Amino acid sequence: MSRIAYVNGRYVPHRGAAVHVEDRGFQFADGVYEVFAVAGGKLIDEELHLRRLARSLAELRIEKPFSEPVLRHKMRELLRRNRIANGVLYLQITRGAAPREHAFPKGVKPSVVMTARPARPPDPSFGERGVAIVTIPDIRWRRCDIKSVSLLPNVLGKQHAKEAGAYEAWQVAEDGHVTEGTSTNAWIVTRDGTLVTRPADHAILNGVTRITVLALARKEGLAIEERGFTVAEALAAAEAFLTSTTSYVTPVVRIDGNPVANGAPGRFTKKLLSRYRSYVAAPEA
Amino acid sequence: MSRIAYVNGRYVPHRGAAVHVEDRGFQFADGVYEVFAVAGGKLIDEELHLRRLARSLAELRIEKPFSEPVLRHKMRELLRRNRIANGVLYLQITRGAAPREHAFPKGVKPSVVMTARPARPPDPSFGERGVAIVTIPDIRWRRCDIKSVSLLPNVLGKQHAKEAGAYEAWQVAEDGHVTEGTSTNAWIVTRDGTLVTRPADHAILNGVTRITVLALARKEGLAIEERGFTVAEALAAAEAFLTSTTSYVTPVVRIDGNPVANGAPGRFTKKLLSRYRSYVAAPEA
Repeated sequence: MSRIAYVNGRYVPHRGAAVHVEDRGFQFADGVYEVFAVAGGKLIDEELHLRRLARSLAELRIEKPFSEPVLRHKMRELLRRNRIANGVLYLQITRGAAPREHAFPKGVKPSVVMTARPARPPDPSFGERGVAIVTIPDIRWRRCDIKSVSLLPNVLGKQHAKEAGAYEAWQVAEDGHVTEGTSTNAWIVTRDGTLVTRPADHAILNGVTRITVLALARKEGLAIEERGFTVAEALAAAEAFLTSTTSYVTPVVRIDGNPVANGAPGRFTKKLLSRYRSYVAAPEA
Repeated sequence: MSRIAYVNGRYVPHRGAAVHVEDRGFQFADGVYEVFAVAGGKLIDEELHLRRLARSLAELRIEKPFSEPVLRHKMRELLRRNRIANGVLYLQITRGAAPREHAFPKGVKPSVVMTARPARPPDPSFGERGVAIVTIPDIRWRRCDIKSVSLLPNVLGKQHAKEAGAYEAWQVAEDGHVTEGTSTNAWIVTRDGTLVTRPADHAILNGVTRITVLALARKEGLAIEERGFTVAEALAAAEAFLTSTTSYVTPVVRIDGNPVANGAPGRFTKKLLSRYRSYVAAPEA
């Protein structure tokens, strides 16, 4: 079976899936995206992703290409054609293709691209042993709340992490506070057991997994503070972890080479990972 | 004659010119570009553009897809096939197409795309009457010296200008200094006749026209200061103007609705525009 992608109304072989060279996604990073996890045939947190997608489009004043029911149908059709029960669906919408000029073109239809691939949940060893991260200055633009494809600084940050032998890079704002990872949100648990993560302002992307983990933590009765924290505070914390659609809840056990607490995944982190796994297995429960 | 584009080694009809949906230019803004003016069959400031291109690629650690002589040959071939003596050549190089993952993919060839179109020099009325600009906060990332396609804030800024009935938006950093326009560099001439423009640090793109106009101004014996200036200073200045490959030297006569000096193009600005036009007509002279 050959892999199928969706491009502007057509289901096409992935290999030949293409957009015009004057697509504004290619020339201006003028587009938004979502990455959906698929587990047991279900799109995890589909509502939250679609709500965020609508918000990103609205912030950039990109027209919705079609209604939500139609989009949902197309996503399912793509999964069906690729026979994916467990994997990842990538969706990108751009302002469309038009002769190159910065300002919004008139009378152009947004481009819609979707790809899908099978994938497994995160390697369980990450949950058992945790991962190392490094810190880097946050050099991104001021509207990281919009899930745009303007990801070049994230690319450079992730590459820096990789070369440092780390799983992720936490970005640090000028005020000394951690904003987030290059594709994940950042969390700590203080020594008095309070879960801390930065509020969803314009400096971070409000991760769907972030929202879900916050809800699960509330259900567990954990104390929660949405506020910034420094790298020093993270190093002095009882636990640290990161979250994302594809990383779930991943313990952070080293920051810039220094251990967080005793250098092993923490109790709350493991509990939240376990709760999140159950949630993915049975989102309604 | 149908328009021809260049895509990864092939000259193809512009209409069908396409890149893969997993091109990193489309998904990550992981690419760089140059816009060349073509006048009288010549690529204006070709050397400066190619030097900057090499620098942008090096900063992002994107491999040069081929040698400079080969690139020069391909650019000329594209102009020839499109029969363009006066126009614009757009060149974009991305890290290539690869399964989506933030870090640099291995063993991937950069994508190279070129388009060309006929175009005229800027409307002479801009030079005669000048243009209005507005100011906006500079919300971009910290590496605007790299000519990347991470242009979403520039798009939003230009659209803001357009809706405000302005030609351009000057972006203002947190320290109150103007950085640059969304696709142009910003200049003033003080009341004592000093030409002022921001130094080419990481906050601006070092425009090729900026470099050439600086050289022309030096030749004219003008006093030059490369330093930041505020909007208030621009409003109190004798003259203001902007420069770019496609705008040449364009007088700025209104800023946020307020006139610059008497609201007419200034003497030095007109002289520099005239010198620049001569330079484009005969770059060797």
